[in-house]
Amino acid sequence: MRAVTFQAPGVVSVEDRPEPELLDPEDAIVRIEATGVCGSDLHIFHGRVQVEPGFTIGHEYVGTVVAAGEAVSRVAVGDRVIGCFQTACGSCYFCRRGLYHRCLESRTFGHGATLGSLQGTQAEMALVPHADLVLRLLPEGMSSDVALFAGDVMGTGFHAVDSSGLRPGDVAAVLGLGPVGLCAVQAARAAGAAHVFAIDTVPERLSVAESFGAEPLHLGEQDVRAAVRAATEDRGVDVSIDAVGDPKVLESAIRLTRACGSIQCIGVYAERAEVHMGLLWLKSLTLRGGQANVLRHVDRVLAMLSAGVLDPSALVTHHMKLEEAPEAYAVYDRREALKIVLTP
Amino acid sequence: MRAVTFQAPGVVSVEDRPEPELLDPEDAIVRIEATGVCGSDLHIFHGRVQVEPGFTIGHEYVGTVVAAGEAVSRVAVGDRVIGCFQTACGSCYFCRRGLYHRCLESRTFGHGATLGSLQGTQAEMALVPHADLVLRLLPEGMSSDVALFAGDVMGTGFHAVDSSGLRPGDVAAVLGLGPVGLCAVQAARAAGAAHVFAIDTVPERLSVAESFGAEPLHLGEQDVRAAVRAATEDRGVDVSIDAVGDPKVLESAIRLTRACGSIQCIGVYAERAEVHMGLLWLKSLTLRGGQANVLRHVDRVLAMLSAGVLDPSALVTHHMKLEEAPEAYAVYDRREALKIVLTP
Amino acid sequence: MRAVTFQAPGVVSVEDRPEPELLDPEDAIVRIEATGVCGSDLHIFHGRVQVEPGFTIGHEYVGTVVAAGEAVSRVAVGDRVIGCFQTACGSCYFCRRGLYHRCLESRTFGHGATLGSLQGTQAEMALVPHADLVLRLLPEGMSSDVALFAGDVMGTGFHAVDSSGLRPGDVAAVLGLGPVGLCAVQAARAAGAAHVFAIDTVPERLSVAESFGAEPLHLGEQDVRAAVRAATEDRGVDVSIDAVGDPKVLESAIRLTRACGSIQCIGVYAERAEVHMGLLWLKSLTLRGGQANVLRHVDRVLAMLSAGVLDPSALVTHHMKLEEAPEAYAVYDRREALKIVLTP
Amino acid sequence: MRAVTFQAPGVVSVEDRPEPELLDPEDAIVRIEATGVCGSDLHIFHGRVQVEPGFTIGHEYVGTVVAAGEAVSRVAVGDRVIGCFQTACGSCYFCRRGLYHRCLESRTFGHGATLGSLQGTQAEMALVPHADLVLRLLPEGMSSDVALFAGDVMGTGFHAVDSSGLRPGDVAAVLGLGPVGLCAVQAARAAGAAHVFAIDTVPERLSVAESFGAEPLHLGEQDVRAAVRAATEDRGVDVSIDAVGDPKVLESAIRLTRACGSIQCIGVYAERAEVHMGLLWLKSLTLRGGQANVLRHVDRVLAMLSAGVLDPSALVTHHMKLEEAPEAYAVYDRREALKIVLTP
Repeated sequence: MRAVTFQAPGVVSVEDRPEPELLDPEDAIVRIEATGVCGSDLHIFHGRVQVEPGFTIGHEYVGTVVAAGEAVSRVAVGDRVIGCFQTACGSCYFCRRGLYHRCLESRTFGHGATLGSLQGTQAEMALVPHADLVLRLLPEGMSSDVALFAGDVMGTGFHAVDSSGLRPGDVAAVLGLGPVGLCAVQAARAAGAAHVFAIDTVPERLSVAESFGAEPLHLGEQDVRAAVRAATEDRGVDVSIDAVGDPKVLESAIRLTRACGSIQCIGVYAERAEVHMGLLWLKSLTLRGGQANVLRHVDRVLAMLSAGVLDPSALVTHHMKLEEAPEAYAVYDRREALKIVLTP
Repeated sequence: MRAVTFQAPGVVSVEDRPEPELLDPEDAIVRIEATGVCGSDLHIFHGRVQVEPGFTIGHEYVGTVVAAGEAVSRVAVGDRVIGCFQTACGSCYFCRRGLYHRCLESRTFGHGATLGSLQGTQAEMALVPHADLVLRLLPEGMSSDVALFAGDVMGTGFHAVDSSGLRPGDVAAVLGLGPVGLCAVQAARAAGAAHVFAIDTVPERLSVAESFGAEPLHLGEQDVRAAVRAATEDRGVDVSIDAVGDPKVLESAIRLTRACGSIQCIGVYAERAEVHMGLLWLKSLTLRGGQANVLRHVDRVLAMLSAGVLDPSALVTHHMKLEEAPEAYAVYDRREALKIVLTP
Repeated sequence: MRAVTFQAPGVVSVEDRPEPELLDPEDAIVRIEATGVCGSDLHIFHGRVQVEPGFTIGHEYVGTVVAAGEAVSRVAVGDRVIGCFQTACGSCYFCRRGLYHRCLESRTFGHGATLGSLQGTQAEMALVPHADLVLRLLPEGMSSDVALFAGDVMGTGFHAVDSSGLRPGDVAAVLGLGPVGLCAVQAARAAGAAHVFAIDTVPERLSVAESFGAEPLHLGEQDVRAAVRAATEDRGVDVSIDAVGDPKVLESAIRLTRACGSIQCIGVYAERAEVHMGLLWLKSLTLRGGQANVLRHVDRVLAMLSAGVLDPSALVTHHMKLEEAPEAYAVYDRREALKIVLTP
Repeated sequence: MRAVTFQAPGVVSVEDRPEPELLDPEDAIVRIEATGVCGSDLHIFHGRVQVEPGFTIGHEYVGTVVAAGEAVSRVAVGDRVIGCFQTACGSCYFCRRGLYHRCLESRTFGHGATLGSLQGTQAEMALVPHADLVLRLLPEGMSSDVALFAGDVMGTGFHAVDSSGLRPGDVAAVLGLGPVGLCAVQAARAAGAAHVFAIDTVPERLSVAESFGAEPLHLGEQDVRAAVRAATEDRGVDVSIDAVGDPKVLESAIRLTRACGSIQCIGVYAERAEVHMGLLWLKSLTLRGGQANVLRHVDRVLAMLSAGVLDPSALVTHHMKLEEAPEAYAVYDRREALKIVLTP
């Protein structure tokens, strides 16, 4: 079968790779109908996340089950499905608490040996371990473009909002309007936020956020703090979402958030950083970090996508063929795309 | 001043009454600009809730502060305000826990001696005890029609949803589409419900619910259980709201709700009733009852009304003068109105 | 192997039964070292819960794994384990939300065809489906007597408290002091209850409750409501646990609980009942019912048993041999025992 | 009246000061029976927290109401009371949400102009604003030594645990065993922690922690991480409490806490600090900081102290006369005391 593989920093190829085979009673094999290119793929493309040359990449996918192990019972051959970007065993300490993203045996599609050596989904077929937990039936009438988001980007935006403790009537700020940040804007509005400030420097992204119901604030051109204060009787927002993963953004979030509010760092931090603990303490803030628990949220996210309460389809800027993957990565790398959907 | 007073079952008058005076350092006096007629007023009108003849009724109000005691600091003379239907002291056991609706000294406007002998708001002026907790500044640009709902009906619909534990992506059922039920429909959608079933027998109310984003189900003409099951893989809804207060409705709610779901009885129960405890137990349901904690929610509700996330203005079917109160009660009694706004 | 089987109402036998065999990759087989006789067994013994004649009964067990399917990874042959009274699949709608007690494929040991046709544990060996979720390693140094409780009775008492929303410093009432009620007393104290009222009519049970840190109240001989009011400034308790499952007990719970408090019905209800909805509504109570989610709590319960924070060993009144099961059931039926432990 | 006043860094005096007078309808005046010396007082003593020379210090107190404004209704002249270390208005944005520690008009006793110019309680009498919220009746039979803790130190230890999300059966680590850390140890045990690690370098404090039910770990002499890992299957603790306020301690907490666990910084941070955000993110941790909401917790804490579920009396190492305050501060400064109680 054809598959997109990492070769070297800046180089991906489309190659012939052996078709997957069932290895475990809980495995399924999915024939891919659509697969996304995501910001995480770009980390691999740039070599910041190391993957073995020749490893198939990609982790967003919609397709049809073509084979299923004997222990698989929630999906069957012939079912159209969407899948999550990582797997979970369902029985370890963390899975038993619903913390699927911390599964002790979790594997992430298309991220090489460091994340479980699970071949990616930018391919004609993919092996899906623990299929009963990782896959969901595609809701009737849902397009691949929309469904793809449930297993990764919208699941992550939803997680940012859900974990933040945002309640109906709250005011939120989303700092950083990449696809995850924009999905967080939608999720915040859908969860009843009375007001969402969307903060970035890219006018196109600010426009998309505005179309999603947020008040756009151009960092640098507008006085963000003044705008937030004016809207909140000087208190600051109830909830901030750092969708970048940068200490400066975190400092802004700490400043923009009201006393006893919360900050959700959905953007990745990998190192030590200077944090204004004094201000965090003085304001009694709550700070949460970490990857999204997409498996836990996927049913809700699909229900909301299905109802149109969430609709990220405006984020799909490009449709390309799997064979065009090298061009797709180049486009994405030039920041010309928000979401590229590849079809085999 | 002119005021609407209860005289006898079926009879209300507009009379001259003495103007209120400040009695306590925490009191304020509000000149009423708009005041609503509510289902609770109808209970008084019918004599089901007993009020002394000559007592001023009404408890929904928007107006301007014309006097304030020395301990009042959140509002000042000249401020336009909306107020809640009941008062709270702020320091008793329940207030200290934010359970303002259970305040040990709570008084309800316009309900006579049984609820604290606090003259009502269907008048040119009203005395507001504990003004700092009971009143809120009218958000800029908000119409009286919309604001009135914050202090009672929308606060109650919001409470029903908030207390139900509904989360984004859930499916809800609202049984009974009076003004509170219709507000609950809006609140459920605003809180991220993927699907809301609105159940009643009155076509006009079903239409309003549909315009608020619900799927209307005509009790009697449609197979409600079948519709709910079809939409929920046979499980039932996550959350049911009984906005009637009738044992048959509660039985329906128990049947429509999925295992481990919750039922919120916002409709009033006053007596013993046969409840299907066997089914409630088998399905591990949670059942909650009681009046709304409007004081606790009013800031959120105002924020959502201000942002247009909630908008009950379609429920205002009649505007009348305070002097026309007898006619207004007659109209309401004939069920020709959802919400009547009176202006002095 | 030898096994205790139901024969007819009032008659259990110890018979030779075929040894279990692995049927599924997720199965394990446990050689039983100790197994309890429980109130639920008595329902079967009396014929109130119908089980096929010849079916092996029992559902509390400690033992050693003697065989495990290829998909079992959390326990291994040779491990000493304790198990839960019911199974869960780990991947259905309810399991994905941690609602293991509502698993769509749940089976209960020793309850015949109505609860999944899973042979019981009052035998020399038992087949355990979904072993990774159902079994836990026996904590080092924990006696069988103590461990047995984790998989059923203490798990249920813990659930009653945990689901009630009890917080440190609260006042609780436990109505009904069978083994589950007594475990709830311990769990409430362990969770930080400042005061626990233990209510029953049996002096011995009241004494045990007192030794567990509760204030015993003899229903009938003492004025329960007066005692509760005196201790709570007339408010009533924060949390009531109905460990009986009787409408009169529920009515007492409604009366004893303070406004905005909660009532947890852990005792079984199987039919319609008259409930004082008026009082429940007036007091804004929360009422929850249903079976315990023992699988969800078992890790915590084992940790607390291991630390001695919970210690139900005083409830074990009898040790008998498996062969003496008919006598054990007769003793239990005469209410002479709280917990009988059988050893093969 | 006699009062302890700050004079200069290292110098406190006992002086004659005018008796307080009622200034507001919500004020009360309390004749002090016992008042504590606290770690916060030492910050003032050292000049790290600036207070005007001649200002009366102290903020822990038990006494009798000798005067009350007309709006005071929860306490009356002659009542024996304990009070909280700070005041709250009850009606601002934060008070309306129960966030009394963030009251927009909050004043702290004995901290000079920066915290509201409210004279302290190390005096014969003290003026208590907003007396209905700040004071509580002294529970019958409770000693001053025990009661003093409710309004500050135990309230803070309780807050650390309560805000951490600790649940019964969890494992906690308390880093830093000053009076607050030791109270947190007790609060964690009382809330059902199966295991509490108490970490410090002072043997005496470790011994007290052990007597409170914790496992003491001597930082430096013992391998803390190895001990925690051994007790938690290598996962780490569910909850860490940083009772020091030092970046190194925070780093330890981040390392000791399991994935998806939480860290509560009750120790004060006043500046920027290097935080291992990479590890915090990788482990999906929640970090909370800030002062305790003692007013919110004081009812629960009093109930637990009254029941003996919490008992900090072992922390009272010295009883001295108010006139001996200079000596008391010297003793405390030499770290020879955990809690000194002064009596006028």
